[in-house]
Amino acid sequence: MIKVSVVGATGYTGEELVDILASHKDVKVTSLSAIIDKPTNIAELFPRVRGRLDIICKSFDFDEVSKSSDVVFLALPHRVSMDFAPKFLNAGKKVIDLSADYRLPPEVYEKWYGKGHSDVKNIEKAVYGLPELYRSQIKKASLVANPGCYPTSVILAIAPLVKNGVVELTGIIADSKSGITGAGRKAVIDLLFAEIADNFKAYKIGSHQHMPEIVQELEKIAGKDVSVLFAPHIIPIRRGILSTIYMKPKKKVSQKEINDIYTNFYKDEFFVRFTGETLPQVKDVVYTNFCDIAVKIIDENIVAVSVIDNLVKGAAGQAVQNMNIMCGFDEREGLI
Amino acid sequence: MIKVSVVGATGYTGEELVDILASHKDVKVTSLSAIIDKPTNIAELFPRVRGRLDIICKSFDFDEVSKSSDVVFLALPHRVSMDFAPKFLNAGKKVIDLSADYRLPPEVYEKWYGKGHSDVKNIEKAVYGLPELYRSQIKKASLVANPGCYPTSVILAIAPLVKNGVVELTGIIADSKSGITGAGRKAVIDLLFAEIADNFKAYKIGSHQHMPEIVQELEKIAGKDVSVLFAPHIIPIRRGILSTIYMKPKKKVSQKEINDIYTNFYKDEFFVRFTGETLPQVKDVVYTNFCDIAVKIIDENIVAVSVIDNLVKGAAGQAVQNMNIMCGFDEREGLI
Amino acid sequence: MIKVSVVGATGYTGEELVDILASHKDVKVTSLSAIIDKPTNIAELFPRVRGRLDIICKSFDFDEVSKSSDVVFLALPHRVSMDFAPKFLNAGKKVIDLSADYRLPPEVYEKWYGKGHSDVKNIEKAVYGLPELYRSQIKKASLVANPGCYPTSVILAIAPLVKNGVVELTGIIADSKSGITGAGRKAVIDLLFAEIADNFKAYKIGSHQHMPEIVQELEKIAGKDVSVLFAPHIIPIRRGILSTIYMKPKKKVSQKEINDIYTNFYKDEFFVRFTGETLPQVKDVVYTNFCDIAVKIIDENIVAVSVIDNLVKGAAGQAVQNMNIMCGFDEREGLI
Amino acid sequence: MIKVSVVGATGYTGEELVDILASHKDVKVTSLSAIIDKPTNIAELFPRVRGRLDIICKSFDFDEVSKSSDVVFLALPHRVSMDFAPKFLNAGKKVIDLSADYRLPPEVYEKWYGKGHSDVKNIEKAVYGLPELYRSQIKKASLVANPGCYPTSVILAIAPLVKNGVVELTGIIADSKSGITGAGRKAVIDLLFAEIADNFKAYKIGSHQHMPEIVQELEKIAGKDVSVLFAPHIIPIRRGILSTIYMKPKKKVSQKEINDIYTNFYKDEFFVRFTGETLPQVKDVVYTNFCDIAVKIIDENIVAVSVIDNLVKGAAGQAVQNMNIMCGFDEREGLI
Repeated sequence: MIKVSVVGATGYTGEELVDILASHKDVKVTSLSAIIDKPTNIAELFPRVRGRLDIICKSFDFDEVSKSSDVVFLALPHRVSMDFAPKFLNAGKKVIDLSADYRLPPEVYEKWYGKGHSDVKNIEKAVYGLPELYRSQIKKASLVANPGCYPTSVILAIAPLVKNGVVELTGIIADSKSGITGAGRKAVIDLLFAEIADNFKAYKIGSHQHMPEIVQELEKIAGKDVSVLFAPHIIPIRRGILSTIYMKPKKKVSQKEINDIYTNFYKDEFFVRFTGETLPQVKDVVYTNFCDIAVKIIDENIVAVSVIDNLVKGAAGQAVQNMNIMCGFDEREGLI
Repeated sequence: MIKVSVVGATGYTGEELVDILASHKDVKVTSLSAIIDKPTNIAELFPRVRGRLDIICKSFDFDEVSKSSDVVFLALPHRVSMDFAPKFLNAGKKVIDLSADYRLPPEVYEKWYGKGHSDVKNIEKAVYGLPELYRSQIKKASLVANPGCYPTSVILAIAPLVKNGVVELTGIIADSKSGITGAGRKAVIDLLFAEIADNFKAYKIGSHQHMPEIVQELEKIAGKDVSVLFAPHIIPIRRGILSTIYMKPKKKVSQKEINDIYTNFYKDEFFVRFTGETLPQVKDVVYTNFCDIAVKIIDENIVAVSVIDNLVKGAAGQAVQNMNIMCGFDEREGLI
Repeated sequence: MIKVSVVGATGYTGEELVDILASHKDVKVTSLSAIIDKPTNIAELFPRVRGRLDIICKSFDFDEVSKSSDVVFLALPHRVSMDFAPKFLNAGKKVIDLSADYRLPPEVYEKWYGKGHSDVKNIEKAVYGLPELYRSQIKKASLVANPGCYPTSVILAIAPLVKNGVVELTGIIADSKSGITGAGRKAVIDLLFAEIADNFKAYKIGSHQHMPEIVQELEKIAGKDVSVLFAPHIIPIRRGILSTIYMKPKKKVSQKEINDIYTNFYKDEFFVRFTGETLPQVKDVVYTNFCDIAVKIIDENIVAVSVIDNLVKGAAGQAVQNMNIMCGFDEREGLI
Repeated sequence: MIKVSVVGATGYTGEELVDILASHKDVKVTSLSAIIDKPTNIAELFPRVRGRLDIICKSFDFDEVSKSSDVVFLALPHRVSMDFAPKFLNAGKKVIDLSADYRLPPEVYEKWYGKGHSDVKNIEKAVYGLPELYRSQIKKASLVANPGCYPTSVILAIAPLVKNGVVELTGIIADSKSGITGAGRKAVIDLLFAEIADNFKAYKIGSHQHMPEIVQELEKIAGKDVSVLFAPHIIPIRRGILSTIYMKPKKKVSQKEINDIYTNFYKDEFFVRFTGETLPQVKDVVYTNFCDIAVKIIDENIVAVSVIDNLVKGAAGQAVQNMNIMCGFDEREGLI
């Protein structure tokens, strides 16, 4: 039984983490902190966990959190995590950061997140927390950069094709659609029910900060330059991402060959389910840590469709999966 | 062709007013104002009206609004309208106030809205803008207090029973359910899509500020004390109110008698549709100015169910209906 | 490890059961059956369980189901279960019936469900499966009649008041609001997305078949006649019920006394959470087996508000809770 | 005042038509028919129109419909319209067909709609009812083939680029997202609220029957072969389509040039609003006959985003726009 804490417990990602950890058999939640008016029992903030977790959520105090934690989850906004992570690392804690702060090299980070990085040396140590690609490194990591939600849905969907040299590496189009919790719990007009319901919109096409993360990971796999046009959209639902990805085959390939590539690539993965040509739906994965993927050859195109729950496999669930790996627990504990 | 202005054009009620007025054949929208960073074309703020209305929404300037208006709609928050209305009245304008500021006597107002009233003398002059009850007074009014959304749905639903002495005047229970636009366009966490979607909640049972307005109007009809327990709820939809109202008959009454009472009470009313025992649904009235009402005798109870669109008959539509009456236009102009 | 089967696995209740049972540590799902064109892997029917459950859903065959089961869940429509239950009981199986067939005496059943009962003798043996009221009987039962969703939400909400003689037993009004999965998976126009979304409606006020079930259980508690006007409504959400219940106190009672009554009544219950005067919301309990209850004194009324997930505490979750009790498992297994 | 009838009045398209026509100043609705158990007042079927339209919806009878109509709207399923249209044409009526039956050449039709065409000769006479492209032909037409909803959203979005030779004609990707009313009012499981809500899915990628219609119209404009990969998706909303369309420029082009092309192409069009680089949202156009279009150059791509209400500009509204043109009415009558 290890001791875990969540810093930034009151956002949507923090809430989901708390909910998962409350039922995890190998951990004890020992500290929850957030920007909060006064210390408040988490069951008052999130009545869902009443009876399952009895702990006070407080303003952040490094010493208090540090001394009571083996593993620290940082569920903080981008540009904030980098101020917290190094302290916990110096204190010998394992850190799982759910922000973007340790996913990109400093210069790329600065370009897309608009702020110079204050903890450059730990960026190199951080392991990108996509277990299906980096499990062995995660096992030994002290700092895991938990992937973004959109990148998780896109990278898992096409990594096998990129890896096997099946598709052209330029001109990839990723048209992604996400539920609104991906935008976080912020008091802004654009996130109101009355603005989002009965509506659907595209935003930041070609300029979303998850695009360099997608490109970086695909380039690592390919060993070559990759270009992706990433086009995110908002679905009027709370949770779930569906990505439709359009690629061109580099050479003639059959559906059978594609099926074999995916089946083989993910043969030991519990949380990735390849469905062949059967298109997955958001409802197949919401409230789960699964990523379902279909791939079809259509005329001159290869089209991949993937679905995840943005709060689970796209954030808190994947973070727990990473913790399970880092701590030697059953990788599925708390997640099924 | 009269000149109309909307003060507070950027809330949900203001937006709905602008949308209706843009297609109204007898008016020209001459001024839109709001708390706004910089003058902005209304089509940029509300792309829906692009091509139908071409006017700049500005910060409020009394002289500018006043000189360009025959009728002024105040779509402002409670406690704000009372600072604006007297000036326009003094300038000889007709004023339709969509806030609660002129609906209640000063002492009741202060109790429920938490602020002393600064324009007591105009409260008396104000006519409660429920055309089905006060059409002749509205015709001559210079200041109309446009009713609240919940009160519209409850008062219209049971006025005929109260008027005809059919029901006990104490112990009435009004269980109302509303879409979220009734709460206004405010940047607060409680109104976020991710908080409202997939959810349903009760709030302010017995303590909602619309309760005294309901009681006051029913007492005016009854000429006696009335007690209503008002219990509002939030439906995860944008628009629409359904009120289920439970009453006890004062004496034996038949369904036939009830049907006759309602049919007769509303026989000249275009916007109230009595449906007998057939329960109306929110979808029957959204985006319309209709109020549909059913009434059934069930065991020892008389149950009324009414539906309106909170933004139309519950706010902007009724305001335009009132303007039509005040200005001698066809009462339905702009509303069908 | 016991063997369990689900008859009627393809409805919403069946699907939820399968999902819960797939992760239950003490059971092995050995048989799934339904009206189905051809034998089909459950993962094809419900992609959610892919990787977690690998079993063929088949047309029903009594011998096959019976020989492979210790416990049989009947997730069948009303009027159908009664043809299946006696056979499994005769074969010595434990049966948990999620239909209404064993909840009411035959004459009441016939009146409300429109069909004479073909298995009268087992009705008497059946235990009403509300663990908070009948746990000791459930422990020894071979046939459990799993409660209706609405009754669960209403009975748990007011049983303590009825038990303690706090409220008048006549004139109780239960205004309930439910998500649409309560209506089952049926190919009918009224259940289409385009009919339910953006809508809200009341239906069957005073004539819903769950009313006699509510009355019966409250009368058992009170030992006297009880009258309830039950008014159900449809919320445009998939899951969740909120019931607002209006009662009159029989004598003067304080909020403190009410709080004590509920706290005491439910002191050993994990799945019922009394929240005092804090109104619970549907989102606090969806995807959980909890029932959250608030009770407030408001003027001359006592108002209770309760929430459950209709598919979990209102159906499949409660059925599993009952199985856990019948089989001596941890009552929470599979449910947190 | 002309006489109009709707055949197939009870589907979503028929309902929308009836709603629009009920407020249209130049027409009298003289006949409504559908497959219906018994003659029923339309206000009973669609309570929305109560008080605005008083007419009995009946089973179809050619003589009755024909003698009471100047214009006949066929709001029938594909493969059914072709049995009705020729009779009305022979009787000298103007026919506006909302099905796909007269949009494609017989051999293409047979391939995509799975049935040989029984009225080949009228296909040639039919005018494709996209007023922004074919207004002058529509003016003189006796048979208008009203466009599909998806094709309306895609063709209007990129016609100016195709017309001006700006983009490559192969490799166009149209990723479209639609509300569910586009699937019609059919009692099938896949359209249930509980299947669609909280969900999002892709379907029929590369095999949807609207693809040949899109290609055909673009080829007519280009005078050359065009290839489009059309990928439709279902949004959990009732109304609205957003299409995101990815193209490659044929030569270097500036945003300014693109803006000029669209502004010029649609300069006389009331119902198409070019928004430059500002991405339109579904809420900007629902319940209106507008199509809003943005186009942006992004890296090596030109991306167009368009929105319409599938029931209005994508069906009933466009049908009324066509009628207005055919009959010499103001093109906007009934539509603003």
